[in-house]
Amino acid sequence: MYFFPVMITSDALQGIPTYLPKYQPALAVFTCQTHKSSCYRLSKRFIPGSTSTEQWRHYIAMALNMNTMRNSNSKMMRSSRTCVVVRSVAAVERGTVNVQRNENFAKLRAGYLFPEIARRRRAHQDANPDAKVISLGIGDTTEPLPQYIADAMAKAAAGMANREGYSGYGAEQGQGSLREALANTFYPNLRVPDEIFVSDGSKCDIARIQMMFGAKATVAVQDPSYPVYVDTSVMMGMTGEYNNAGFDNIVYMECKPENNFFPDLSKMPRTDIIFFCSPNNPTGAAATRAQLTELVNFAKKNGSILVFDAAYALYITNPDCPRSIFEIPGAEEVAIETCSFSKYAGFTGVRLGWTVVPKALKYADGTPVWNDWNRMMTTCFNGASNIVQAGGLACLQPEGYKEMISLIEFYKENATILLAAFKEMGFKVYGGNDAPYVWVGFPGKASWDVFAEILQKCDIVTTPGSGFGPAGEGFVRASAFGSRENILEAVRRFKVAFGK
Amino acid sequence: MYFFPVMITSDALQGIPTYLPKYQPALAVFTCQTHKSSCYRLSKRFIPGSTSTEQWRHYIAMALNMNTMRNSNSKMMRSSRTCVVVRSVAAVERGTVNVQRNENFAKLRAGYLFPEIARRRRAHQDANPDAKVISLGIGDTTEPLPQYIADAMAKAAAGMANREGYSGYGAEQGQGSLREALANTFYPNLRVPDEIFVSDGSKCDIARIQMMFGAKATVAVQDPSYPVYVDTSVMMGMTGEYNNAGFDNIVYMECKPENNFFPDLSKMPRTDIIFFCSPNNPTGAAATRAQLTELVNFAKKNGSILVFDAAYALYITNPDCPRSIFEIPGAEEVAIETCSFSKYAGFTGVRLGWTVVPKALKYADGTPVWNDWNRMMTTCFNGASNIVQAGGLACLQPEGYKEMISLIEFYKENATILLAAFKEMGFKVYGGNDAPYVWVGFPGKASWDVFAEILQKCDIVTTPGSGFGPAGEGFVRASAFGSRENILEAVRRFKVAFGK
Repeated sequence: MYFFPVMITSDALQGIPTYLPKYQPALAVFTCQTHKSSCYRLSKRFIPGSTSTEQWRHYIAMALNMNTMRNSNSKMMRSSRTCVVVRSVAAVERGTVNVQRNENFAKLRAGYLFPEIARRRRAHQDANPDAKVISLGIGDTTEPLPQYIADAMAKAAAGMANREGYSGYGAEQGQGSLREALANTFYPNLRVPDEIFVSDGSKCDIARIQMMFGAKATVAVQDPSYPVYVDTSVMMGMTGEYNNAGFDNIVYMECKPENNFFPDLSKMPRTDIIFFCSPNNPTGAAATRAQLTELVNFAKKNGSILVFDAAYALYITNPDCPRSIFEIPGAEEVAIETCSFSKYAGFTGVRLGWTVVPKALKYADGTPVWNDWNRMMTTCFNGASNIVQAGGLACLQPEGYKEMISLIEFYKENATILLAAFKEMGFKVYGGNDAPYVWVGFPGKASWDVFAEILQKCDIVTTPGSGFGPAGEGFVRASAFGSRENILEAVRRFKVAFGK
Repeated sequence: MYFFPVMITSDALQGIPTYLPKYQPALAVFTCQTHKSSCYRLSKRFIPGSTSTEQWRHYIAMALNMNTMRNSNSKMMRSSRTCVVVRSVAAVERGTVNVQRNENFAKLRAGYLFPEIARRRRAHQDANPDAKVISLGIGDTTEPLPQYIADAMAKAAAGMANREGYSGYGAEQGQGSLREALANTFYPNLRVPDEIFVSDGSKCDIARIQMMFGAKATVAVQDPSYPVYVDTSVMMGMTGEYNNAGFDNIVYMECKPENNFFPDLSKMPRTDIIFFCSPNNPTGAAATRAQLTELVNFAKKNGSILVFDAAYALYITNPDCPRSIFEIPGAEEVAIETCSFSKYAGFTGVRLGWTVVPKALKYADGTPVWNDWNRMMTTCFNGASNIVQAGGLACLQPEGYKEMISLIEFYKENATILLAAFKEMGFKVYGGNDAPYVWVGFPGKASWDVFAEILQKCDIVTTPGSGFGPAGEGFVRASAFGSRENILEAVRRFKVAFGK
């Protein structure tokens, strides 16, 4: 910010705009001057870029009026000639266009969590070039794709060079065969293919879901939870400003060891939308059938829409924890479910997910949410890659499905190893049984400090709990996605640094 | 809509909510009754779903008050006891949740253009099972992928089954090698890799661009133009309602033969955003260097952001027509450019595009648009498929590039054949020289009627011009994407039906 002097009087308004650089918002200082007295400050005001002469006249009149009201009895203001002077202008920064930045983006915090972690990791690596950094940070799959599934995509890609194998635009909602396989595999007797929309991933679908609901919807999230729910709410204008405790107008449903990681719904206010992820990222807690029934009933009572994120459903071991919200009777009238091949088949870089929107779910005016979602997907999306969809279909055929489950088992073993190690070291540790995440408590410590300490001492990247919401403070998340070698080495380093 | 009788008096408000199904908006008819006279209607009112007793009390009091004001002197209103009765309620339809539908989606017209065309095509095929329908409708590529490019993707997919070839999450902005190749190929000495964001396609990027700009931005589009600009503007709430002439609060910049398909900018009001596609879809008109210079100057003068859609740039033959807006000096301070492999390399189903956001482009408050776009892409997107990016990279290597250009040449020959045929038949016809689209005039006819007539007579699907905006009325678009056999057969059928 820099100041430059200007001198504009209320008598010489005509020339104002030429004094100021175009498209430059500015902090103007208004002073008052009579022909008898010297100047004193009336007010200061933020002036948008490209303010017209007419608007300047208005600002000056306001500065004068406010002062007149305050000093209506003073001698000075009754003097014969009063003149407002804009004495100086602080230029904030110059834009190249006169388009106001979307105010919702200004509310967002510095960066999306994982790019920020990547930045800190690079800084650590730069400072310690020989360090062999192990990432238990972002939940990024590391193991090669199962052969059958990779082959299916290789074959689809090669086939695109022949007339028989080539395909152009497909249905934006996904290939019929894949939608059918998804319905048969994950929602037998629960949902039909027509309600399943294939996409390039759950994260992208969540952003589209928010664009569909629009700025006026109110939102609740588990606290802690996947940051995309909150960040996209902010982007769409569903929230207020950021305070230390989170964003205004978002309901944070605290999930802590004290409540067994399930929110006390009796204390929660109504919102239009409730994001709920089970097994939860980052805590690794899977909700039971009784808990999900309570959640569905809560949504029904309030007339809310539940956006259920089941991205880790196949990691569930506990038979009492449903793998789909649609296992709860009546959920189809209140819930959307989103899911992904990312953590099932190692598709984090391949990109394939799906979202289920039951036709029975209807807005207050009776419009099926399905209608708007279909419009959303056909207008703002153009289908997942046909090559990638061939991979998704392979995942759901007997051989591919077997491979996929083996891959999940492998990562679950990693989680078991991490969980056991942290327990052995005496930490309060959660998750890991029904999810690829282990949630480690560091009571009384700031989680970014713990993140930094672990990175410094162990050359291991974790994820600071506070990145997932206020209730994540005092925890870090360790991801079970890694080679066995790395997981064992990470455990060894943890024990050296933190073991008794 | 159905009516059901209720009888709620202002004396018995307590029981109201139980009379009405929950979450059911309704049209309530209020009547007035005194102990001396019989009922007459006071007012009717739309009641939102789940109206509380308190709100009902308010509505009833208003109905009574309004009437009292109107009839303050009448004998009846001065009678001792007056009572409002809700006599009947028309239920609109029952929602399963009490979430209001996003009003912006309600503004949208029936369906996105191309699904609507697909629906009509299916209906025609069902009615004429033996018809060999040829599509010159949606601009969907038909020719197999070039060998080198398909091989690169097949190799990448197969490699994912090995530790060396496997990759998980990539940079959301795209692989460094691909961003660099895009910069070197399409923007040498103009833009740097860091300004190029790889995505799953231009259509998806346009939706994200709109979400970034937010609801308060004002928008101008070429008329006619690709429907996604308008539809996403409506979804984001940038527009008013639909009228016969288009949506309120969108500036339609008429592009007709009369103005050589370039808008008269001297008559155009300022908007925050200007969508401009050259070569244009659907008219096939490519803007000259002089015209684009005028456009950039217009944006500069108004402080507007230009969203330049260059999806067909490589189809340009005319050396006077730039292939990127960044060839115009100073454009980097006002323009974003979006582009795609869809029509270059037959990637319509493969899904790969990119958007260029210069760091020099800054909002009025000085924030680089790049910052918010980067936040958008890292939060609402997770990178294009790594397998597909390998295909994009192959397109930009010497062998792949040669193949890609041959493919474009092939479709351009199709366009030449179509253009010549329509000229021979005596139509007023445009485009086709610098674009894969031919724009055929049917003056005085409604373009959906022409669409239906061509489908009926020729079993050929076109695209009705009015689907691209009000100024498209009286035209249909014929796409040059098709096998040579189909294009020649289409020409033969056209000549039978419409030839002299």
